[in-house]
Amino acid sequence: MKKILAFIFLFSLSLTVYAEDGYRLWLRYDKIDNANLLQQYRNKISSLKFTDTSAVLLSAKEELISGLQGLLDKKIAIQNNITEGTLLVGIFSDASIHSYISAKDSTKFGKEGFIIKSVKANQINIIVIAGNTDIGALYGCFHFLRMLQTHQSIEKLSVISFPSIQLRMLDHWDNLSRTVERGYAGMSIWNWQKLPGYIDKRYKDYARANASIGINGVVLNNVNANATILTKDYLIKVAALANVFRAYGIKVYLSARFSAPIEIGNLKTADPLDEQVRNFWKQKADEIYEYIPDFGGFLVKANSEGQPGPQNYNRTHADGANMLADALASHNGIVIWRAFVYSNSNEDRFKQAYNEFKPLDGKFRKNVLLQVKNGPIDFQPREPFHPLFGAMPQTPLMMEFQLTQEYLGFSTHLVYLAPLFKECLDADTYENGKGSAVAKIIDGTLEDHNITGMAGVANIGSDINWTGHPFAQANWYALGRLAWDHNLTSAEIADEWIRQTFTNDPRFVDTVKKIMLASREITVDYMTPLGLHHIMGYSHHYGPAPWYNKAERADWNPVYFHKADSVGIGFDRTSTGSNALSQYEPEVRNAFADIHTCDEKSLLWFHHVPWNYTLQSGRSLWNELCYKYYAGADSVEWMQTSWNALKGKIDDERFEQVKMLLNIQHNEALWWRNACVLYFQTFSGLSIPKGFEQPDKSLEYYESLQFPYAPGIGGNQ
Amino acid sequence: MKKILAFIFLFSLSLTVYAEDGYRLWLRYDKIDNANLLQQYRNKISSLKFTDTSAVLLSAKEELISGLQGLLDKKIAIQNNITEGTLLVGIFSDASIHSYISAKDSTKFGKEGFIIKSVKANQINIIVIAGNTDIGALYGCFHFLRMLQTHQSIEKLSVISFPSIQLRMLDHWDNLSRTVERGYAGMSIWNWQKLPGYIDKRYKDYARANASIGINGVVLNNVNANATILTKDYLIKVAALANVFRAYGIKVYLSARFSAPIEIGNLKTADPLDEQVRNFWKQKADEIYEYIPDFGGFLVKANSEGQPGPQNYNRTHADGANMLADALASHNGIVIWRAFVYSNSNEDRFKQAYNEFKPLDGKFRKNVLLQVKNGPIDFQPREPFHPLFGAMPQTPLMMEFQLTQEYLGFSTHLVYLAPLFKECLDADTYENGKGSAVAKIIDGTLEDHNITGMAGVANIGSDINWTGHPFAQANWYALGRLAWDHNLTSAEIADEWIRQTFTNDPRFVDTVKKIMLASREITVDYMTPLGLHHIMGYSHHYGPAPWYNKAERADWNPVYFHKADSVGIGFDRTSTGSNALSQYEPEVRNAFADIHTCDEKSLLWFHHVPWNYTLQSGRSLWNELCYKYYAGADSVEWMQTSWNALKGKIDDERFEQVKMLLNIQHNEALWWRNACVLYFQTFSGLSIPKGFEQPDKSLEYYESLQFPYAPGIGGNQ
Repeated sequence: MKKILAFIFLFSLSLTVYAEDGYRLWLRYDKIDNANLLQQYRNKISSLKFTDTSAVLLSAKEELISGLQGLLDKKIAIQNNITEGTLLVGIFSDASIHSYISAKDSTKFGKEGFIIKSVKANQINIIVIAGNTDIGALYGCFHFLRMLQTHQSIEKLSVISFPSIQLRMLDHWDNLSRTVERGYAGMSIWNWQKLPGYIDKRYKDYARANASIGINGVVLNNVNANATILTKDYLIKVAALANVFRAYGIKVYLSARFSAPIEIGNLKTADPLDEQVRNFWKQKADEIYEYIPDFGGFLVKANSEGQPGPQNYNRTHADGANMLADALASHNGIVIWRAFVYSNSNEDRFKQAYNEFKPLDGKFRKNVLLQVKNGPIDFQPREPFHPLFGAMPQTPLMMEFQLTQEYLGFSTHLVYLAPLFKECLDADTYENGKGSAVAKIIDGTLEDHNITGMAGVANIGSDINWTGHPFAQANWYALGRLAWDHNLTSAEIADEWIRQTFTNDPRFVDTVKKIMLASREITVDYMTPLGLHHIMGYSHHYGPAPWYNKAERADWNPVYFHKADSVGIGFDRTSTGSNALSQYEPEVRNAFADIHTCDEKSLLWFHHVPWNYTLQSGRSLWNELCYKYYAGADSVEWMQTSWNALKGKIDDERFEQVKMLLNIQHNEALWWRNACVLYFQTFSGLSIPKGFEQPDKSLEYYESLQFPYAPGIGGNQ
Repeated sequence: MKKILAFIFLFSLSLTVYAEDGYRLWLRYDKIDNANLLQQYRNKISSLKFTDTSAVLLSAKEELISGLQGLLDKKIAIQNNITEGTLLVGIFSDASIHSYISAKDSTKFGKEGFIIKSVKANQINIIVIAGNTDIGALYGCFHFLRMLQTHQSIEKLSVISFPSIQLRMLDHWDNLSRTVERGYAGMSIWNWQKLPGYIDKRYKDYARANASIGINGVVLNNVNANATILTKDYLIKVAALANVFRAYGIKVYLSARFSAPIEIGNLKTADPLDEQVRNFWKQKADEIYEYIPDFGGFLVKANSEGQPGPQNYNRTHADGANMLADALASHNGIVIWRAFVYSNSNEDRFKQAYNEFKPLDGKFRKNVLLQVKNGPIDFQPREPFHPLFGAMPQTPLMMEFQLTQEYLGFSTHLVYLAPLFKECLDADTYENGKGSAVAKIIDGTLEDHNITGMAGVANIGSDINWTGHPFAQANWYALGRLAWDHNLTSAEIADEWIRQTFTNDPRFVDTVKKIMLASREITVDYMTPLGLHHIMGYSHHYGPAPWYNKAERADWNPVYFHKADSVGIGFDRTSTGSNALSQYEPEVRNAFADIHTCDEKSLLWFHHVPWNYTLQSGRSLWNELCYKYYAGADSVEWMQTSWNALKGKIDDERFEQVKMLLNIQHNEALWWRNACVLYFQTFSGLSIPKGFEQPDKSLEYYESLQFPYAPGIGGNQ
């Protein structure tokens, strides 16, 4: 007994020596701490049998072995025969699986889906995990491990799951210099200098994490692209990464710089209708596929924010996209063309992407997707859904969400983004009448598309915990899970993420879930309540700067977006204003256009509202604005109190990290509140309502703050 | 027994789940794997008693508890009484220590040293670790843990140890944007954006690692300095770091930009004799000490490579240094003024620092050190010692070594630098006749200085393993150990580093020590044999570019340094050439000046040698040059073979990392060899000797290589 205790002590030691540094993400596989459940699981799982040895199934095998041995704290034998408690993993078409799974079921789970089923044959109880492909089986294994990690019953398993969206992607805005545009978690994890010779262990762990949530494509480089990545030296490096990712069902994509024919092709033009240019891309595509036979395709930001594009040659976006699509078509590559364009014009920036792209509907090749940001401006804490959703029925629209918190407190604020994503996905476009949710456009069901996609702009960097803020991991996780199944609720996703990442302790799960689910609305309140948008610091977007009006373009200025004056505040986008609302279907348009029916959460997106206008709360607009700012900041205190009460429920390291970060978040919420209320007060001329703490610093103080070294911008590419 | 086995298995699991990612450096504290030794240690160490509770002793206590419990795999009780096996830790002046340690001993170990002694009193055997200060005691604790980690006997302990040099420092060339100039291990570990609110665990682990090897000062920011770090916003962040480091005996220093009075002080000048400027610095110093009461002082790069300095105002370096020294003096702060200056002139760059500073000897304030790089040019794989060593007897010279491998293969090449450091420290300047080693100048004994220092330009970044290459950790380690005791041999330091970092397995230790000890000479051979220097790629210094001649300054061009022509190769620095040798004492000068006595390892540093000149090997210079390049590249293969034979001796993760890196190193050694031999052949007109593999690519190919995104340069500050 003494010796056993010594060993227990030994184990506890090893836990203290190895810190909970967050590197393991949601794939921790620590021993199940519920003794009854552990016994149940152990009884059900004794051995592993794999039907095949493809690279992907070897990944599955490795993951299951390390996962099960960690969770069950017992050795799991690999065997060739089937005995009581065997976990049988493989491809449906394999004879040994065939006898357990019906063809009807296999039709249901399709190309990337899976079945997990408890079956009994010859008095032997086993569990089968199968897909029609090895990647389907791998996803099934990760799902099974997740069930154990989240303490679900595995008594009578009958799970069928398959993705609702085909391309489930991360877009990295990583530069070749390893700076990351809008990155707040260290350097790019791609170590170009050491590639291809040095394969960082992170590459594999990154692939594991992605595969565990169904992500099957990654764009390695910034959409503000550098043509150098398309040169041989770099393609060899890209191929080394693709080799790692392939075993996890992940394809590599690259952002293509439209002017690459000039920069690396010795041509004088990048005109998409020029024969030499077309040949350049054709040859470049052929070259890429030599190195990377399963290369996914190109992501392109063209004629946007200074990037070159087909319009430089008086061609359309369709001309540009189709040229690249033609180059890739024979290799089954695709083009993801971004709709995020706006020019330096007098037209409301909100309207420009729609104006540009709607006329092109039906003019794109079959292997082109148009990638549209969730909202019409730029990843704000709250945006109405982008009016292109529902406006281009003949074109597959791919969703672009932003995981990296460019406008949401960098990697310092705890903001769970699933509610933001869901708000957009669930929004009804009324394209085909009621029930035409954005999600149904993205998943192809409403408009009957053969190719569908959803991307998240990655929040991943070289920080040990990948995302800087421990809770930012949840946004990576949520993107993958929603792309797999957009019917999952924010709460369901939070629940499983918390259990895997921290603990199944019910009080912890319950409290943290409440914090997460409230966090986005709280952030909206202390940053941009009532439909305010884009009032962050110029260029770096750190902190409040609603006063800023010195940008070289009007539509980069906060004052452009809030339009505060002595009468009121907000951007009139009704027919009396820019009429951006005309881009929506009548049902949507009318709901927003009527100031009485307009959701107050979006009010200032669409209306210039007088300061004394009475809102549903009975408060005037000015008072409500103050109320929201104060409530937002106060709610961060609630988050802090809630979190601090959880001390001891998890490891000290992450507990303290989050505690410190929440403290910063609170200070920055107060900064937002005070700066914005003081600034808008210069227009309203009204007092901060009684009972509210007065700002302790002057507006001049807030206006004087400078952040020349704010992260996420600068750096050579 | 079954249960015990289960626990053993559990433990092995925990090892597999937590990867050997290198984060723990040489402070791993894994259980002693030699059962006999473990028993001996356990018998000798039962409990801990501390005499005091200062912050530094609390650090010692925490380290001893985690270290001993890890190494001995047993709970170590903290107690107030002394019993058999107590480890008694404290300050000599404490009564309970007094009875065990003689005053005579305490005089020996001085302010930062310590004693570790086995003593017996009242039939009770204990071990005492004591210093005259708490930091001395902390160093003693780290030394004791090192003894256990390296499997030394603790039977009859009687260790007295104290540092030979007072200021043992790391200089970080970290920018406020978190890029690191000449950094190859990720971003700066200082997360300025999240400071002071967020204290990364790394800060403490960094302090622990430094304290464990005696480093007691760190300069946080790049010598190409940004005045912004001296503003209040940043001083508060600096203070937060200083608060962490203080408990480990580490002082914070800052690089001061000489023109700060203009940039952040609203002055029109930075003239060191201007009263307003002097007041600016006085007030700035006062402000700094308000935030950081134990602030160390300023490091200054002035009038060098574009940095501002006193010469902008026709003042001397002494004027500049003394002004800052006066501002810091009342706070006991010091100024570390860099001697690395050279102007765009016709004078041999080798000579310029000496010409500039020798006349200033005796003109500096008491609290000024002059920091001199080990060699006269710039951290080359081999340099003769800097001629300022021995030339400024009235000025304390501080050594500046470079840990980050700017010219030595970045973080990709395994190059153990202790032999480079030792070569300089052991070099005899003959200042006071034979026996006037550089080390004796640095440690103050030769010239009787009250203040002494040694710095290493840090190779630390945000990579999980801190230094990129696992073996680069050894250079950080060696700097600390040599600053503590420059009489340690490179082999001794390698031995203890290997044992702590990897394993005590004798075959592993023996093989890896051989690799490490040979690695620097091997690198010299494949990069810059026979005294070649500074022929790396322009600006980024990656790879060979002996052909480069397009820099805006002659002395930034490789051709300036090698001077190859049809007659021969090398820089004539004898009296027939630049006569740089005149800066050395006659004994040194004459030895180098005579081509027959000049150490061939430094030959081309001082002589323009004909291609057909016969060397000691009997080979012509051309053949010897080829021989060295080929031997260097071949020796990397030997390193690979030696390493690969160690598979299984250590964890797979680090084994594979090093294996991949050695493979890159071999490829790059071949690149160096081929590029240099082909290029120099264009001058010698001679064939590559028979039996040597011919380069497989043309000189044009090597000349065409471009590395626009090589790490370590660029980025805003």
